[in-house]
Amino acid sequence: MSTELLHDLDEVLLMGPGPSMVPESVLKALATPTLGHLDPQFIELMDEIQSMLRDLFRAESGLCLPLSGTGSAGMEATFVNLIEPGDRVLILKNGVFGNRMEDVAGRLQAEVETLDYEWGTPVVPQDLREKLASSAPYKIVAMVHAETSTGVANPAEEVAEILRDNPALYLLDCVTSLGGMNVDVTEWGVDAAYSGTQKCLSCPPGLAPVFFSDKAVDALRSRQSKVPNWYLDVTMLLSYWSGEKRVYHHTAPINMLYGLYAALDLVLTEGLDASFARHRAAHRQLVNGLDAIDLQMLVEEKSRLPMLNAVVVPEGIDEAALRKRLRQEFLIEIGAGLGPLAGKIWRIGLMGHTANPENVDRVLEALEKSVSE
Amino acid sequence: MSTELLHDLDEVLLMGPGPSMVPESVLKALATPTLGHLDPQFIELMDEIQSMLRDLFRAESGLCLPLSGTGSAGMEATFVNLIEPGDRVLILKNGVFGNRMEDVAGRLQAEVETLDYEWGTPVVPQDLREKLASSAPYKIVAMVHAETSTGVANPAEEVAEILRDNPALYLLDCVTSLGGMNVDVTEWGVDAAYSGTQKCLSCPPGLAPVFFSDKAVDALRSRQSKVPNWYLDVTMLLSYWSGEKRVYHHTAPINMLYGLYAALDLVLTEGLDASFARHRAAHRQLVNGLDAIDLQMLVEEKSRLPMLNAVVVPEGIDEAALRKRLRQEFLIEIGAGLGPLAGKIWRIGLMGHTANPENVDRVLEALEKSVSE
Repeated sequence: MSTELLHDLDEVLLMGPGPSMVPESVLKALATPTLGHLDPQFIELMDEIQSMLRDLFRAESGLCLPLSGTGSAGMEATFVNLIEPGDRVLILKNGVFGNRMEDVAGRLQAEVETLDYEWGTPVVPQDLREKLASSAPYKIVAMVHAETSTGVANPAEEVAEILRDNPALYLLDCVTSLGGMNVDVTEWGVDAAYSGTQKCLSCPPGLAPVFFSDKAVDALRSRQSKVPNWYLDVTMLLSYWSGEKRVYHHTAPINMLYGLYAALDLVLTEGLDASFARHRAAHRQLVNGLDAIDLQMLVEEKSRLPMLNAVVVPEGIDEAALRKRLRQEFLIEIGAGLGPLAGKIWRIGLMGHTANPENVDRVLEALEKSVSE
Repeated sequence: MSTELLHDLDEVLLMGPGPSMVPESVLKALATPTLGHLDPQFIELMDEIQSMLRDLFRAESGLCLPLSGTGSAGMEATFVNLIEPGDRVLILKNGVFGNRMEDVAGRLQAEVETLDYEWGTPVVPQDLREKLASSAPYKIVAMVHAETSTGVANPAEEVAEILRDNPALYLLDCVTSLGGMNVDVTEWGVDAAYSGTQKCLSCPPGLAPVFFSDKAVDALRSRQSKVPNWYLDVTMLLSYWSGEKRVYHHTAPINMLYGLYAALDLVLTEGLDASFARHRAAHRQLVNGLDAIDLQMLVEEKSRLPMLNAVVVPEGIDEAALRKRLRQEFLIEIGAGLGPLAGKIWRIGLMGHTANPENVDRVLEALEKSVSE
């Protein structure tokens, strides 16, 4: 018996749909000796993390905390805390993660309706306006901000405008957007949002920062039935994460929270606007470089995400073989297409620490060699 | 902005109810550069972890995998995957974690019955025999093996004997027992079990090793309704964790899994029986030492857990002040009592890496000084 597998791991440049590259200071933070989950020093750290998350979400009220699961647990948590059987939910969807919302909400016995868009194209706000005008009220309107499966930026701000005077709760998936492009829950009137640590925050996967507005917390507190998920019940989590006396709920993932703290520190020290600009610059560099080697983007320019780039696989190229070569020969990971886009696109991530000029050069060079040979 | 909070953390000897002390090699493993969750090297590691978990649970068939949440997510997962509304569930309970089972199962609309025992005393197998003889069949009979809130070892083997010819699924909480005392899902015919990483495995909190027997997997596959929890749906997780083609479900907590791999390696290299013996020896040393300073155990000898020791707070001692002094002056964490035992006991953990003679000496010395002054 030995831990040889760990010592033999390659150091791979992570340019897929997440995880992104993790900076040394975050890795080091993970290895900080473990404290107890009720230790006064750890509670101080929890308070600091919550304050940093408020800055990240631009949340002036409501609550922010990191849930003890990956980004998908964040999706599960926002829906399970806000839905009761029979609640009407409208999902605007155009990719894997919108589909997943529909699945999650359906399992919770919501009455789910959807507005569907072709993968690779964005949600059309005007359709929402018409849908709301012609339908009974919804409890929740949900959308993915940055659709990681297609590289599409959905119009979160326009949707916010339409929902401004609507009683529905606005639920926004910010897994891939948070930290890499503007997310402003206060300005947009978002009521529930969730993210993951392994995208633009450059922390390993394992935690889900979530936001609930005061309106969402009110909805949660006036539920008729208990949240059918003890582990993710936010009312109970609140007793641990805030308030005078910290009530034990479950043992928090201490070391992952050390990592998140260090990762948030990096993002906020750089500054959100500087981080967004860096992501955009890396994206422009990538798109220009791809253009120079005749590779096309899937998504039209105005709806492209900076941090997730869907590149059309040219005719005659074995996309899986190319990804394998990139991984083995160039030590670069890029992502495959999913669902209807499987075999048709590559997904190149420029998330967090990954988004810098050297990395973009490296993937462009590797692609050029691999596509041309 | 700086990460000063992390640099200023004390190094605390963790002798509470978990987390336990994390060995250097496990901390170091956490800081291994992150790979992608579909990387071939990472998939090799996943396979190895599953194989190690089978050894740990002594599972000759069925499935073992680590869920992406803490031990409490393990409880949530076993119940949510196996329960459908109206299913009859019997819970044998005598502490916080038995109560939690009742809460979790109730939220899932199970028809829950319980056999209740005074906190600090064990479940009585004969009662189960009588209950089964006089009741309609149960789908699940559930019990906590090592009740962390009281220090009681429940009679998992005797319960197994009674359930041997019963159609009910035997669900066993092994959060605190796994790795520190015998757990043998094959010999005992356990159908679903879960644990946490931060107890006798000496890995930071954040993952929940779970076991499902073939019988439990059959039950899961013949459900009438979808599992009402997308994140913890084991049928979908299986497609990622095993099989020819690994289907993306959620992004696994890569670095935590590095840590678990290193932690499992330590436990299995030591050998399970040697680990159990070390836990028993540390426990005997502690009990003898406590006896010498006139501190009494809550639980009678034959039902005491080795890794969680409930010590009666003597009359006239401010238990919270003593814990605070241990933490501040001696840099030792011990746990408080919960529920009806709040203020009445301390909980001293001897879990995993914590269970060694030096640590026992250190806590005894600190207690002696603090109690006598």
